Amino acid sequence: MLSFESDYNNGAHPQVLKKLVETNDLQSLTYGFDQWSESARDKIRKAAEAPDADIFFLNGGTQTNMTVIDGCIQSHEAVIAPETGHVSIHEASAIEFTGHKVITLPHHNGKMRAADLENYMQWFVNDQSRDHLAQPGMVYITYPTEFGTIYTKSEIEEIYNICKHYELKLFIDGARLGYGLMVDGSDVTLPWLSKYCDVFYIGGTKVGALCGEAVVFPRGNAPKHFFNIVKRHGALSAKGRTIGVQFDALFTDGLYFSIAKHAIEMAMRLKKTLQAKGYQFFIDSPSNQQFVVLPNDKVKLLGERVEFTIWEPYDENSKVCRFVTSWATTDEQMAELESYL
Amino acid sequence: MLSFESDYNNGAHPQVLKKLVETNDLQSLTYGFDQWSESARDKIRKAAEAPDADIFFLNGGTQTNMTVIDGCIQSHEAVIAPETGHVSIHEASAIEFTGHKVITLPHHNGKMRAADLENYMQWFVNDQSRDHLAQPGMVYITYPTEFGTIYTKSEIEEIYNICKHYELKLFIDGARLGYGLMVDGSDVTLPWLSKYCDVFYIGGTKVGALCGEAVVFPRGNAPKHFFNIVKRHGALSAKGRTIGVQFDALFTDGLYFSIAKHAIEMAMRLKKTLQAKGYQFFIDSPSNQQFVVLPNDKVKLLGERVEFTIWEPYDENSKVCRFVTSWATTDEQMAELESYL
Amino acid sequence: MLSFESDYNNGAHPQVLKKLVETNDLQSLTYGFDQWSESARDKIRKAAEAPDADIFFLNGGTQTNMTVIDGCIQSHEAVIAPETGHVSIHEASAIEFTGHKVITLPHHNGKMRAADLENYMQWFVNDQSRDHLAQPGMVYITYPTEFGTIYTKSEIEEIYNICKHYELKLFIDGARLGYGLMVDGSDVTLPWLSKYCDVFYIGGTKVGALCGEAVVFPRGNAPKHFFNIVKRHGALSAKGRTIGVQFDALFTDGLYFSIAKHAIEMAMRLKKTLQAKGYQFFIDSPSNQQFVVLPNDKVKLLGERVEFTIWEPYDENSKVCRFVTSWATTDEQMAELESYL
Amino acid sequence: MLSFESDYNNGAHPQVLKKLVETNDLQSLTYGFDQWSESARDKIRKAAEAPDADIFFLNGGTQTNMTVIDGCIQSHEAVIAPETGHVSIHEASAIEFTGHKVITLPHHNGKMRAADLENYMQWFVNDQSRDHLAQPGMVYITYPTEFGTIYTKSEIEEIYNICKHYELKLFIDGARLGYGLMVDGSDVTLPWLSKYCDVFYIGGTKVGALCGEAVVFPRGNAPKHFFNIVKRHGALSAKGRTIGVQFDALFTDGLYFSIAKHAIEMAMRLKKTLQAKGYQFFIDSPSNQQFVVLPNDKVKLLGERVEFTIWEPYDENSKVCRFVTSWATTDEQMAELESYL
Repeated sequence: MLSFESDYNNGAHPQVLKKLVETNDLQSLTYGFDQWSESARDKIRKAAEAPDADIFFLNGGTQTNMTVIDGCIQSHEAVIAPETGHVSIHEASAIEFTGHKVITLPHHNGKMRAADLENYMQWFVNDQSRDHLAQPGMVYITYPTEFGTIYTKSEIEEIYNICKHYELKLFIDGARLGYGLMVDGSDVTLPWLSKYCDVFYIGGTKVGALCGEAVVFPRGNAPKHFFNIVKRHGALSAKGRTIGVQFDALFTDGLYFSIAKHAIEMAMRLKKTLQAKGYQFFIDSPSNQQFVVLPNDKVKLLGERVEFTIWEPYDENSKVCRFVTSWATTDEQMAELESYL
Repeated sequence: MLSFESDYNNGAHPQVLKKLVETNDLQSLTYGFDQWSESARDKIRKAAEAPDADIFFLNGGTQTNMTVIDGCIQSHEAVIAPETGHVSIHEASAIEFTGHKVITLPHHNGKMRAADLENYMQWFVNDQSRDHLAQPGMVYITYPTEFGTIYTKSEIEEIYNICKHYELKLFIDGARLGYGLMVDGSDVTLPWLSKYCDVFYIGGTKVGALCGEAVVFPRGNAPKHFFNIVKRHGALSAKGRTIGVQFDALFTDGLYFSIAKHAIEMAMRLKKTLQAKGYQFFIDSPSNQQFVVLPNDKVKLLGERVEFTIWEPYDENSKVCRFVTSWATTDEQMAELESYL
Repeated sequence: MLSFESDYNNGAHPQVLKKLVETNDLQSLTYGFDQWSESARDKIRKAAEAPDADIFFLNGGTQTNMTVIDGCIQSHEAVIAPETGHVSIHEASAIEFTGHKVITLPHHNGKMRAADLENYMQWFVNDQSRDHLAQPGMVYITYPTEFGTIYTKSEIEEIYNICKHYELKLFIDGARLGYGLMVDGSDVTLPWLSKYCDVFYIGGTKVGALCGEAVVFPRGNAPKHFFNIVKRHGALSAKGRTIGVQFDALFTDGLYFSIAKHAIEMAMRLKKTLQAKGYQFFIDSPSNQQFVVLPNDKVKLLGERVEFTIWEPYDENSKVCRFVTSWATTDEQMAELESYL
Repeated sequence: MLSFESDYNNGAHPQVLKKLVETNDLQSLTYGFDQWSESARDKIRKAAEAPDADIFFLNGGTQTNMTVIDGCIQSHEAVIAPETGHVSIHEASAIEFTGHKVITLPHHNGKMRAADLENYMQWFVNDQSRDHLAQPGMVYITYPTEFGTIYTKSEIEEIYNICKHYELKLFIDGARLGYGLMVDGSDVTLPWLSKYCDVFYIGGTKVGALCGEAVVFPRGNAPKHFFNIVKRHGALSAKGRTIGVQFDALFTDGLYFSIAKHAIEMAMRLKKTLQAKGYQFFIDSPSNQQFVVLPNDKVKLLGERVEFTIWEPYDENSKVCRFVTSWATTDEQMAELESYL
């Protein structure tokens, strides 16, 4: 069945798979010291214009979030996230498992507002019982957000300045980073991002890889013993090459960016089609997740032919539905979907 | 350079890779609900003669150990392991990270002795301060062990009976399970193992896969909400097919077993060569890890041509060296190694 | 300086102190097996009409909350609390330290509403991503609440029924339980409470003791090994008699209740005075914490003579102030305070 | 029944109790900001000749150990302790609960040897898999030890130098510190100790208080936010005065030391009596715990009249028995015990 249910329901991008095949018979070092992991690190450093970056390859989003958060803040510190942040809801309390509270701020189309952060920190700093509260140590945002929206440069910059003022680390979850960076008209780039946060990760699982995320500490600012911390979180791949080879392919000739761009083009095509048909959007998303309000009967009919996510009820007669494009979405799939809308 | 350093320094077995390529363009469900994961589960159930088995695919050994241990025992309980057990030493305190103490018993060539376990439990039960001690909840052993040795049926049976008597769960770490099962003359089989423990895992990373381990609760005895527990430990693959496809290939036509058998044959060939050359063995291992004592000058010379592990000093003049064969070891590699010995 | 800042700024009630003095030279068993702890348990069982109750003496509120929560639910489960609940805010993320998420529901004058709980659970049960969410295992409420308000019988009963329906445990934090039970016109009693929750605690620190809280599992339903769990949380008193003696005194001749009643009388007297002077109340509290809105200049003047808590700004010209009475509040102190109002 | 079972089976020293009574009716600040806690801190600083010391009052030994260890090292670090250390065995895996591994070294009459520590650290530093091991962050020893033995100055100094070399913190558990300091002929003093470790605690529960331990960071070197960390571990007393008042009394006119000295005198008297009767000692202890080998029939007979601890079987015919004196042991009790030996 045709699926617009997620961006991780295909295998790997052909170039990624090709590289896995080509390198398969070669022997290598283990635990990420192999030649491809090293090469991938170099290519990412170049793409991010961050020559001193510390880069670690982990396996999936939740694992990466819990390892980075637990590894970067003191054990008694908490992380501040928008209430719709992935760590706030959809990680089965993995962050709390590592002992850290997730303090939630309101979201605005999935985004944290600098003003909300500033207000929270002012309240915290001035609260007479502040020593009885969870101590904030980090801010977590996603780029793009769970609603497909993206931050502008100035929005991130403002958040980052607040973080520096209050000695909070800024962590950007880039599970879908490629899609966020390729949004039409966005001027946020990998080099820019590397200057405006303390740590971020480049999502592979959702952008062309079989598995894998690349954690980047852009200024060589990985916590001491981070390798050991990764191991301790069960996040160290013995056969590290499996991820290294894939990122080596993804960061060769800008593949990561070009395939993400394709997904955005498909999403914008879908958006136009939906607009033309007069459907209302739940959220105005510029990236590869589109949230549209469909009447219940349309939802039912469409559900027989296409996989997509029923996000939540909109009203009695309609539902919010999520359609996701990816690097793998084809013109044929688009045409088929459009014919049903 | 020629490498006998580990059994995870190659890519995937060609059949595994072929299956990844063949299925690459197909869309699937996520989080392990894809068709190949389901098929792999069925094949493992058949191979284990455990039709009710609950099976989960995780990503690596440490991750699997911490998720299974933390998921199966109460939060205040401890796990008993041999002092050389992987969880006791080489997992960077990942088990303690989940809040559980690892109680260590002496090892005998890497193995736990039933008598030591019985003695410990008798001491524990009778100790007047037992309520101030860590409460044992599980026994952890590896098959084969970190020294390549294997347990006999009666050794496991005895341990399992003690576990049942004291209401401890028995967990068998099978990171190299295939190699253990294919040892010449061993009569421990997958179906037999499924009857003599509460949970075990079938290692993929070291036996032909790019990544992945299959956790088996042989009698449908997975803890309630184990899926959620896996997620919470950062161990749930969004693109679950990546591992599912590989295990589907590994359990087609007995591939898992035949490739493990090959590694054992290579190891026995190496063992004979070393014996013929008069080298002393540090441990008499029947599986794919061989521990031999080499004079220091031989170690140095060999080290220029072959990668292997210097395990520990033996005496002033010689060192314990580990050589590991795998499913990927070729006759040519063997011949080259032998020419240097 | 006159203090209405809290109900734990005095020593012990004279009867409690007397008992400590009387028993001081006698030797006893340790870890809570002493004669006074046993006697106190018996008296509490009688007062609660819960002859099978398991009772443990711990040292303070946060310690008790984290031990009970972590001891009663599975390690992956979460606790649901009102957003103003003590565990939600003022325990420095002690609950998250034990690995559990605190899911917050809106509060209504400090109370959780059954309807909010039911809605949350219905959403949870029906959410398609429920296996990716934190799994609720317990509901936590305070009696009286952080705002001094109390639940009616039917409010608790309704919450408890929802808990039973969804297999959640109900835990009532009674740091100020005595004060809650002695509220004018409330018909919630200790025996009644023992029937409508799974575990609660009787606060001592704030109701006449130097330290100590009594955790009650009213139907002998303490988790297996709870003694060990208490020890593991650093909550087991070696010299358990210190708390046992105090609760023995508090539950002799209804002392716990009579001294709590005195605090309520003092609070109602204060309330009347404030009402008579025309001050507005922030919350209509029937117990020993009174929240009143005072003009800024009054706050300043009063602050020079009396200790109380400035809770939060009310508007530009006034502040919410908290005044707390206790078992130790005297007529003289009341008169002095009133003279300043 | 006569009891030599522990040093925490009496109430408080009369002077401590007197102070609790005298101060009972006075109001005070909470959470350890009261006048007596402040006074006690000053007196301890003077006694330790550590004018900059940060001092926190906690409630019991296990709580103190877990809070100090978890608060002072990074979350991935481990603590090294002798295998007989209190944290290694008798704390129900409280340290592991906080996520830290306890690495055990052999004990010598309860003591860690500097040479063993140096050997361990050399092995660790040189081990090729060191990044896969638990990373040592702290050394934990007890003074006196669980066997009543004490370290000489040079033994502690040597351990502390190794700690500094390898950047490990040294933590000395002084649950029975007074008794250790008052051992005949020992030249270890509180001021000296303050210079040769990073943190230690002065035990109150076993040396004259109803409850309470004083954690001392002798050079003002408490971790940032340690107050918050204490709260988060459930170890912050709301009515902090309860412990503060007691330590204020204990450190007035050298009471802590003089009452500990009394216990040592009683212990030495017992030791002489036992020696005179020809009994063999299991361990040659200079402090208030005496371990002697008694024939089984003597154990049985004595057990009808005196409480003491049967430590472990010595051989078929005799048992190791522990007798503990304390600040409260009277001449009459000694005489009665001696009459039974």
